[in-house]
Amino acid sequence: MSELRQDPTTKAWVILAPERAKRPQQKQKMRRAEELPSWDASCPFCPGNEDQTPEEVFKIPVSDRDSAWEVRVVPNRFAALAPGSEAPIMVEEDHLFRKMAGIGAHEVIVESPSHNTPMALMSYEQVEKVLIAYQERYNALKKNGQIKFITIFKNHGWASGTSLIHPHSQIVATPIVATYYRQAFDIAHGYYVDTGRCLYCDLLAEELEKEERIVAHTEQFAVFHPYASRTPYETWIIPKSHFASFGLFPDMYLAELARALKDTLFCLYQRLDNPAFNLMVDSTITEDEEDPYYHWHIRIIPRLSTIAGFEMGSGIYINTALPEETASLMRECVGSLCEVGEISVASEA
Amino acid sequence: MSELRQDPTTKAWVILAPERAKRPQQKQKMRRAEELPSWDASCPFCPGNEDQTPEEVFKIPVSDRDSAWEVRVVPNRFAALAPGSEAPIMVEEDHLFRKMAGIGAHEVIVESPSHNTPMALMSYEQVEKVLIAYQERYNALKKNGQIKFITIFKNHGWASGTSLIHPHSQIVATPIVATYYRQAFDIAHGYYVDTGRCLYCDLLAEELEKEERIVAHTEQFAVFHPYASRTPYETWIIPKSHFASFGLFPDMYLAELARALKDTLFCLYQRLDNPAFNLMVDSTITEDEEDPYYHWHIRIIPRLSTIAGFEMGSGIYINTALPEETASLMRECVGSLCEVGEISVASEA
Repeated sequence: MSELRQDPTTKAWVILAPERAKRPQQKQKMRRAEELPSWDASCPFCPGNEDQTPEEVFKIPVSDRDSAWEVRVVPNRFAALAPGSEAPIMVEEDHLFRKMAGIGAHEVIVESPSHNTPMALMSYEQVEKVLIAYQERYNALKKNGQIKFITIFKNHGWASGTSLIHPHSQIVATPIVATYYRQAFDIAHGYYVDTGRCLYCDLLAEELEKEERIVAHTEQFAVFHPYASRTPYETWIIPKSHFASFGLFPDMYLAELARALKDTLFCLYQRLDNPAFNLMVDSTITEDEEDPYYHWHIRIIPRLSTIAGFEMGSGIYINTALPEETASLMRECVGSLCEVGEISVASEA
Repeated sequence: MSELRQDPTTKAWVILAPERAKRPQQKQKMRRAEELPSWDASCPFCPGNEDQTPEEVFKIPVSDRDSAWEVRVVPNRFAALAPGSEAPIMVEEDHLFRKMAGIGAHEVIVESPSHNTPMALMSYEQVEKVLIAYQERYNALKKNGQIKFITIFKNHGWASGTSLIHPHSQIVATPIVATYYRQAFDIAHGYYVDTGRCLYCDLLAEELEKEERIVAHTEQFAVFHPYASRTPYETWIIPKSHFASFGLFPDMYLAELARALKDTLFCLYQRLDNPAFNLMVDSTITEDEEDPYYHWHIRIIPRLSTIAGFEMGSGIYINTALPEETASLMRECVGSLCEVGEISVASEA
């Protein structure tokens, strides 16, 4: 079993999971979808190879009658964290050193049976099914009282750190809150205490008023390049209504979110020639899903260059592009696609 | 000119430096030193090509009489930050958005005239000269009242994010304190207020007592793999005496530090076959170099795998190796080299 440990100098937690050293790597250069086969006999996520993964915890079947599936969720075969007993997890302390058992969950969402259809090229309906699976698993995992925090994320392309091509996302449920989020929650909570308002609601209002970093917005969502983007084309998708947790977000809006997400990824795919990227769905802690201060959203971080020592050491990213300029380029893409009717995100900005 | 911006949701600063988009990239696979030429006509850091870099701000000459150098420091041609006037820099606020002019410094330390001698294979004397250059520039840059914080770092190998092969380090001086360090300083300060002691002094004492994560130690330095290492073989080199800043560290110890650093890098080179790595020299803020709560040290982070979405998103690193085991493997390397007299780090652990 793996172990969680807290760095006494930064309070950052790490998961020590020696088991994961054994996971397979398919190393090769990034190729566009059309250069890949639609089915790969050696891919554990392709239909027919279901016995190469642990038993599924959720699936969206093609029909009630057969075993074919459209989305499939399985425990990660090389899980960083795994479920334990239902007993509360104790932090063990030995002078300066704190540790916990590596209890939690680490699951893989296989986004489609197709080996070569990245989310940027999926149908809106298929992306919606992926989002349904995200929410389903989020809400299932949060019922475990040991879980404090759930991250949904996606690595696309070798430079993003993925080890398998077949389009998939991951969900990690942890008994601790990661440093990045802890800091974000503290700041959002402080802002709420000071002003009585949600920082993200205010931020969104200001971005919509300024317009210059808005890529597109729909009735329920805004797509924008943040003021202090860490990388070129860092993109956030944020709901206009205040919900602290993706778990409690009304599922009637998932179809609209699927359109905004797919169109955003499609424009990134077109502009940056199928870039590697990481995608994260950020929510509040599971114990306080209705809090008034945090506001769930999606972050997409293209991985156009390697993270170097300065970023690693200091946490300061050096971004080589202005978000106002990249947002403008993305608007052109969205706009031109709207004209030919291939895309639906309204660009009123 | 570039710009510093603070993310209102995390308080993390970024540098927006569009100029850096133009810098050249020598992309190729990592090769061992012996496969590279000792001089490369197209390398801006090789002797004879000095006119391809800005004028040097410091050098260690071979002799007083000629222009040949052993270590050379120049402003980065594609600097993320650059010196401005001496006037205090103001943070400009526009509702939620804060920004500052991108004032500071970004310099390159060319570690030797040799194109193909990484620090792991340099002589102790050469490494000492590099450390002298580090300290010289640290102390020169801190005199600028606009500078709050100075990071010295090194990227080795393509996977570390470097764009040039020729062995070099970098120094970045910023008018703000990076999130990573701000958090570390807050924690160290809190510990000092609680206990009256330096967290790092206590940590070092505990590591030396436990022994299991100690790689080696000399009279003045300990080399160890931290309890919550973020990557396999993450290695810290820390002075046994309390100094908050590398700038104030007595230069009489730099020869001993050079031996500890070179031997550590040599063992990593041997064990991991010339791994890519980042190296950081962590010091306190320049305004408070004599503080009793922080303790300067060197961090070496091998880049054996790509940073993926989970690490990017949450700040939680998934480490596939136990530091107790990697420290033990490093001790074997250090021990066997001691026997044949090629290495000097005392391994009493």
